[in-house]
Amino acid sequence: MNHNLPAAPMTFVLFGASGDLSRRLIVPALYNLFLEGGLPHQFQLLAVTHGDVGRETVIAQFHQAIADYSRGGAADETPWQSFVELLHTINLNLRQQDAYRNLAGRLRELTADETRELIFYMATPPLLFAEIAQGLGDAGLADDHEHVRIVVEKPLGHDLDSFLEINQALQRNFKENQIFRIDHFLGKETVQNILAMRFANAIFEPVWSRRYIDHVAITVAETLGVEHRAGYYEQAGALRDMVQNHLLQLLCLVAMEPPVSYDAADIRNKKMDVMHAIRPITADQVYQTAVRGQYDCGWLSGNAVAAYRGEPGVNSRSNTETYAALKLHVDNWRWQDVPFYLRTGKRMAAQVSEISIRFRDVPHRAFPAAAGLNAQPVRLVMQIQPEQGIVLKFMAKEPGPTLRLRPVNMHFNYGEAFDMAIPDAYETLLRDVMWGDATLFMRADQVEAAWRLLMPVIEVWSDNPAAGFPNYLAGTWGPEAAEALIARDGRSWLIPTLGTPPPCPI
Amino acid sequence: MNHNLPAAPMTFVLFGASGDLSRRLIVPALYNLFLEGGLPHQFQLLAVTHGDVGRETVIAQFHQAIADYSRGGAADETPWQSFVELLHTINLNLRQQDAYRNLAGRLRELTADETRELIFYMATPPLLFAEIAQGLGDAGLADDHEHVRIVVEKPLGHDLDSFLEINQALQRNFKENQIFRIDHFLGKETVQNILAMRFANAIFEPVWSRRYIDHVAITVAETLGVEHRAGYYEQAGALRDMVQNHLLQLLCLVAMEPPVSYDAADIRNKKMDVMHAIRPITADQVYQTAVRGQYDCGWLSGNAVAAYRGEPGVNSRSNTETYAALKLHVDNWRWQDVPFYLRTGKRMAAQVSEISIRFRDVPHRAFPAAAGLNAQPVRLVMQIQPEQGIVLKFMAKEPGPTLRLRPVNMHFNYGEAFDMAIPDAYETLLRDVMWGDATLFMRADQVEAAWRLLMPVIEVWSDNPAAGFPNYLAGTWGPEAAEALIARDGRSWLIPTLGTPPPCPI
Repeated sequence: MNHNLPAAPMTFVLFGASGDLSRRLIVPALYNLFLEGGLPHQFQLLAVTHGDVGRETVIAQFHQAIADYSRGGAADETPWQSFVELLHTINLNLRQQDAYRNLAGRLRELTADETRELIFYMATPPLLFAEIAQGLGDAGLADDHEHVRIVVEKPLGHDLDSFLEINQALQRNFKENQIFRIDHFLGKETVQNILAMRFANAIFEPVWSRRYIDHVAITVAETLGVEHRAGYYEQAGALRDMVQNHLLQLLCLVAMEPPVSYDAADIRNKKMDVMHAIRPITADQVYQTAVRGQYDCGWLSGNAVAAYRGEPGVNSRSNTETYAALKLHVDNWRWQDVPFYLRTGKRMAAQVSEISIRFRDVPHRAFPAAAGLNAQPVRLVMQIQPEQGIVLKFMAKEPGPTLRLRPVNMHFNYGEAFDMAIPDAYETLLRDVMWGDATLFMRADQVEAAWRLLMPVIEVWSDNPAAGFPNYLAGTWGPEAAEALIARDGRSWLIPTLGTPPPCPI
Repeated sequence: MNHNLPAAPMTFVLFGASGDLSRRLIVPALYNLFLEGGLPHQFQLLAVTHGDVGRETVIAQFHQAIADYSRGGAADETPWQSFVELLHTINLNLRQQDAYRNLAGRLRELTADETRELIFYMATPPLLFAEIAQGLGDAGLADDHEHVRIVVEKPLGHDLDSFLEINQALQRNFKENQIFRIDHFLGKETVQNILAMRFANAIFEPVWSRRYIDHVAITVAETLGVEHRAGYYEQAGALRDMVQNHLLQLLCLVAMEPPVSYDAADIRNKKMDVMHAIRPITADQVYQTAVRGQYDCGWLSGNAVAAYRGEPGVNSRSNTETYAALKLHVDNWRWQDVPFYLRTGKRMAAQVSEISIRFRDVPHRAFPAAAGLNAQPVRLVMQIQPEQGIVLKFMAKEPGPTLRLRPVNMHFNYGEAFDMAIPDAYETLLRDVMWGDATLFMRADQVEAAWRLLMPVIEVWSDNPAAGFPNYLAGTWGPEAAEALIARDGRSWLIPTLGTPPPCPI
């Protein structure tokens, strides 16, 4: 994360410029970076579109995208006009060989043969990743290892083999240090702060181990259903869509050993150590390690919502899981016997992503038994979204003459603490790509290890369609089997720490 | 703190009922306990006055005292009339022998010879403590060890010998478990919560030692001057008035080992262990262990305030210290090499009592050097008053693309966390006296040890008048010598964590 390097002139090639990802996330992020002076000097944005789309159309699409999705809202006229001057367009059919020759020609025109940083951002359907990488390689566009980078994003395959295939195509044409694999969770300020909290403060690390921690629970819950993504989601499901990337990344950040430095290699090596230490899930252990769910119709904030199988584009007998829970073990010195419970789902009771660290109970209760009726072990909650903060739940004495302990919260809120705009994850990550800092990106071995870990679950689930789908009501915390998963250990899911709840409707 | 015992009928004898302590603290506390149903059934309050003061006068004084000093404000008519029914009065000259016979007679009348709990509360000038104790003993009023208690309050002597004298008079006539020595700091909710925080939560104790803590700073700062107490204060000074009791008690609570139970004997034994472990201050070490100060005139919130030597009743060449700072060592396994810095003063920059625990720096800084420009070690602040809460100051990443760490605060506030009235310290302590729970009171050996610790300082200071008095301006944080006391160790006073500051005047 060394952002002090002067960036060279840069051309940013955006494949899939008219697509959903570009409009919702990349274009607004680029524009916000532009507004804040966060783009390199002499920056060019080359939007690659498909079919007969002219520059004026792209400009109109981008303008609308910023109005719809930028955290700053619609663009003001003057900066917008300056931004448009940076924009170039090209129509390419990326499945044709000559597309890449044409692209190379256009880049020569744009860059007038001077040395420039070149970024290829693949905001395209993933089935094109391998093909584009090969095309760029064949056209000689990947050769300048110093100045060329390529950016890809999930889904990087739908299983281990397909990932390896994409990855081989990338690595045949690019060196690993040219390849930036985005997990946008890692760009979130609250996620980056996990490391700051752990390693810039001397009081958490001493209690950050099996000696003091009972278990860790990671929840990434959405209230959204499948929305317009049924085509993709039907083939993916919660395990591939969320656990394979975001939840395992959060686990790595919580569990990793202190790095020697904050360099990309150091951080990523330490995360890989965690991936290596996660106890493999054997096929015969899947039933007591993993739980899947699919939402039924139900109510969310007073609104009736459809069952997953009733969503547009979803097979009415779909076997796709919209909920997944896992119990993992990290077999190393620090974490032996501390289970990590992961869960994620759609149409759950609240939108909340958080990491809950449940500490062990006090070794001895000196207080009178009656004082401790409400006593609970300490819990440290790292709130990822929508709340952005840290909550320490601990016991305090209730005011009054009788000694009674009660759980209370110590709060930290990023928004309140820092009177400054919190950048979107994509702004952070795009900037890191431009500056060539790979710390927050996924290395190939991490992604591979994540697929390898989950393959037995994927295969068992695929071979054995769920008998009871749908098995949880929309607007709840998931299926009963997920309660049983953790209850077998004498524990229960930690109810997420929500922000101020909405006022009661009546 | 077992408050579930049924209390017997009780007569509460208040010596010095017309005095300052009674009016400001005891009568309002008794009335609030009455309102909350916190008094034993069949409660009688016998107000002992001096001179020819009738019951109606006492009623009027108490009524006014509640209006002036109760946290609930003036008494409502109906409960007030019920309270008045509990009130009895007697005029006694406590320096005369027959006073105690008269008192005994009056108590026989009131109690109709049935067995009652009897509490003698000495809200009198301390020079009467020994005499009253002896008088009560001689009149046979102390004999019922089961049911009779006596309450005294600082100053318990002005040095070791005078304390021992008072204490001998008390102990000749009462058993130690009948004697309740108040340190009103121990009745504060925030002070009681020090033990709750430490021993009802498993995450603080592991880092609560020399291995993780760099030093502890205890500040009890007042903005008030000597006010109307010059007569007493000229003979006392900050060391006797504050350090000998309140600050050393806070130190004991921070430093004590975990108790086996919350019984009075357990807690007080553990506190005595700390007192025993404090490294004695030898006469030749006073100059590098203790600092005294006296306030000069100055400004407080825009108001000019007089120097101590210019206050009514103060000798214009007074040698009395209005500020004292000490550096102490606790020579035991847990605290070796962790200094405890104590300071207290009048006319300081802000009214604030707090305990600051400064943790050690991280053992290794993995972050880039530039990221840590503002890095500070973690600090845990227990706010006693006027803020009532806990603040954890730790490092977080500033939002934005560059990794920059900045200290932020995690907050806990008792008032916000508990939507209930916080009782005054005296309510807590009076209730404990009535219920016979001595946990929050000072045992003789504690008081003696505190005097013994401070005697070398008292003697050296008394034998060597301060050369530079006055040596700090009103409205500042004390004398330069106090900065030097801690700066010699390469440390500095931790700036107190104040609540929301008042708006800037312009």
